[in-house]
Amino acid sequence: MIRTHACGELRALDEGKTVTLCGWVETHRIQGKLSFMLLKDSTGATQAFINADLTKKIGEVPKESIVKITGTVKKRPENQVRKDLATGEVELSATDAEVVNKAETPLPIDVAENTTTNMDKRFDYRFLDFHRVKTQAVFKIQSELAHAFREHFYKKKFVEMQPPCVISAASEGGTDLFSVQYFEKKAYLAQSPQLYKQMLACSMEKTITITPVWRAEKHNTPRHLNEIRQMDIEAAFYNQMQIMKELEEVAAFMISQVVAHCKKELEVLGVHDLKIPKGVYLHYDEAMKKINGTHGEDLTPEQERQLCAMYPGDVVFVHSWPSKIKPFYIMPKDAHENSEYSEGFDALYGGVEISSGGQRIHLPELLIARLKHKGLNPEDFKTYVDSFRYGAPPHAGWSIGLERMTQIVCKLDNVKEGTMFPRDRDRITP
Amino acid sequence: MIRTHACGELRALDEGKTVTLCGWVETHRIQGKLSFMLLKDSTGATQAFINADLTKKIGEVPKESIVKITGTVKKRPENQVRKDLATGEVELSATDAEVVNKAETPLPIDVAENTTTNMDKRFDYRFLDFHRVKTQAVFKIQSELAHAFREHFYKKKFVEMQPPCVISAASEGGTDLFSVQYFEKKAYLAQSPQLYKQMLACSMEKTITITPVWRAEKHNTPRHLNEIRQMDIEAAFYNQMQIMKELEEVAAFMISQVVAHCKKELEVLGVHDLKIPKGVYLHYDEAMKKINGTHGEDLTPEQERQLCAMYPGDVVFVHSWPSKIKPFYIMPKDAHENSEYSEGFDALYGGVEISSGGQRIHLPELLIARLKHKGLNPEDFKTYVDSFRYGAPPHAGWSIGLERMTQIVCKLDNVKEGTMFPRDRDRITP
Repeated sequence: MIRTHACGELRALDEGKTVTLCGWVETHRIQGKLSFMLLKDSTGATQAFINADLTKKIGEVPKESIVKITGTVKKRPENQVRKDLATGEVELSATDAEVVNKAETPLPIDVAENTTTNMDKRFDYRFLDFHRVKTQAVFKIQSELAHAFREHFYKKKFVEMQPPCVISAASEGGTDLFSVQYFEKKAYLAQSPQLYKQMLACSMEKTITITPVWRAEKHNTPRHLNEIRQMDIEAAFYNQMQIMKELEEVAAFMISQVVAHCKKELEVLGVHDLKIPKGVYLHYDEAMKKINGTHGEDLTPEQERQLCAMYPGDVVFVHSWPSKIKPFYIMPKDAHENSEYSEGFDALYGGVEISSGGQRIHLPELLIARLKHKGLNPEDFKTYVDSFRYGAPPHAGWSIGLERMTQIVCKLDNVKEGTMFPRDRDRITP
Repeated sequence: MIRTHACGELRALDEGKTVTLCGWVETHRIQGKLSFMLLKDSTGATQAFINADLTKKIGEVPKESIVKITGTVKKRPENQVRKDLATGEVELSATDAEVVNKAETPLPIDVAENTTTNMDKRFDYRFLDFHRVKTQAVFKIQSELAHAFREHFYKKKFVEMQPPCVISAASEGGTDLFSVQYFEKKAYLAQSPQLYKQMLACSMEKTITITPVWRAEKHNTPRHLNEIRQMDIEAAFYNQMQIMKELEEVAAFMISQVVAHCKKELEVLGVHDLKIPKGVYLHYDEAMKKINGTHGEDLTPEQERQLCAMYPGDVVFVHSWPSKIKPFYIMPKDAHENSEYSEGFDALYGGVEISSGGQRIHLPELLIARLKHKGLNPEDFKTYVDSFRYGAPPHAGWSIGLERMTQIVCKLDNVKEGTMFPRDRDRITP
């Protein structure tokens, strides 16, 4: 056992105990022959008093070094309680101290909470950037979001899917694919698990996944990433309305879990106004009217912001979009190939689109008709179309980007800050 | 609402209710002008009695077609209860029937539980193979395994990691990488999240992930896949013994959850002897003695089987391997660069190796010395080595292949049967 307690764990009732802590040096302040060390780990920090002998033994220890301290827990006098620390009621009086791994100096980036290092440089040294409490807060929240997403649907008997990432052709007929040399064949990185989740829903009925997907888009903006993780759902015997309701419910659950379990992290990030979102449902025409939009066009980023501002903190569903601006596989209204409207929707949250989805076409002939409407060649989608020929039920689904959701909840300026190891136009390291 | 009930849900106490079911046709048996249909979904099957008018309306409906039936629930006489069905106490007397999506005939594969179609052909039509109860059982169990793995560590405050899949260089100095054209650069698919999970553990302390990894191995055996999902853990301030204990505990939890929640699925697969595994700990020397192995060599598949056979149903940890047959990053005993033994282990379960792991080297100079011992050039690992220079704690970890675990639990002959969409030497479709 390297340590007996975590650094953030000690309280007044531990007084008199002999404990061993092991953590990262936040500060080491030498006063004459004595010294004071603030030792931290993922749970918090404790101050240790280090006597002259031990101070001489360990010397001045650089910030971020790993130190192991054994000592006795002392209660501080009332008027010396450190209110900035969870462990502020107590102090550790060291009886032994050892430098486990000394950090080299200077550190290549500024690891202060209000760091002066720019984002790109921080990403170059992401392993050190993870020492910052703010960075840790973002990914504790992301972890909570991912867990809540799966937990919600696990309880509703959804099966977790493991879609392939290396595929033989574009899943949505799109461009912007990264190519892979797969032995003698040319393959691609999946843009989406679309086809695979439909196959699963058309047999096992209810499925979810969080899976990496790639888009070889050359944009380099605060909203773009080339490798993301998608939270996907697909369910048989669901229509547009039912599948939107699932999104409303899981979004409320995800946020409620973050609020319940990540209080400290939200505070560190200065997020004080996170509320459990409700669902607001607007027909495409109604939404366009509210923002003086042009019928038949997609929402602009500005219009997304406007709509969200009308329902602060809620998820705004803009549903029943015109067929002509939705993908070929979205069900047209009443399953008529010439319907003006479709069973497809977008969901907006925090000022941006977080999800796209709807009911899919499960009828091969209708799918072929819609492919032709879009000017696509049904032959190029033969495998996809044929997968509905042997017993495919009506089904619906959507997906949400995990990093975008993290960005919104944590109020980050750039989606890359919500990505552990971002991949963009230029970056594939570390 | 397309349906009011699931097909496997109806019981005697539903007698008299008017319900709507929607599902897949298991059988449609016409007797004169009347017919009987067995309608199934992921919850089970119900038999429906279809009168002459409705039989005339729908005609003979091919197996696997999607049908919607509204009707009245009738209780069967005691002596006519169908014991092979969960819903055998009742029958649905149809008042309306509609073919929602007619399956084409003949089906391209045999979807009977004891299918006559070979494995490769079934994979070609995986969407239809998923209609089989046996296939569904495998992936419900896989879903349970993945959920239990995450749930166990979530409760212990581990943070879920999202490692990158596209990387700039080999993570373990290995060959067998698939290359990706990443805009103008050449990149690779990750073989393992090794470096990334170590970075996370060295800052956020405790991390897990289930992530896809790729190995461009040309083998094509029942044990090989080129795209798998790894269940990974890495934790700071852990040594070899502590990290093995985590594996013992999570394995017991995963199996206990499968036993508790997948009774029906285990039965379908004929798995009757699944027991909650205990951990058995053997020093490498002790293990080698038991099987008359050669000191300094790896375990052969036959030796793995032998060791597992000595402790049926348990997880056998062979620990403290000789340094020379463990990777360069495994901590040598007592952190001495020339130690004969290491802090690395293998875990065996169900006759095969399921995991490799151990304590890692967190000291840059020791890492460089071990790289040289292995005949590797420390310059090639500069980024990796440098990531330990600014405050890296002792840490340890391991990984388990999700598909291999699925194969063992479900007693499958081929690991591909435990993979939704397998990728092997030849296959990248569907």
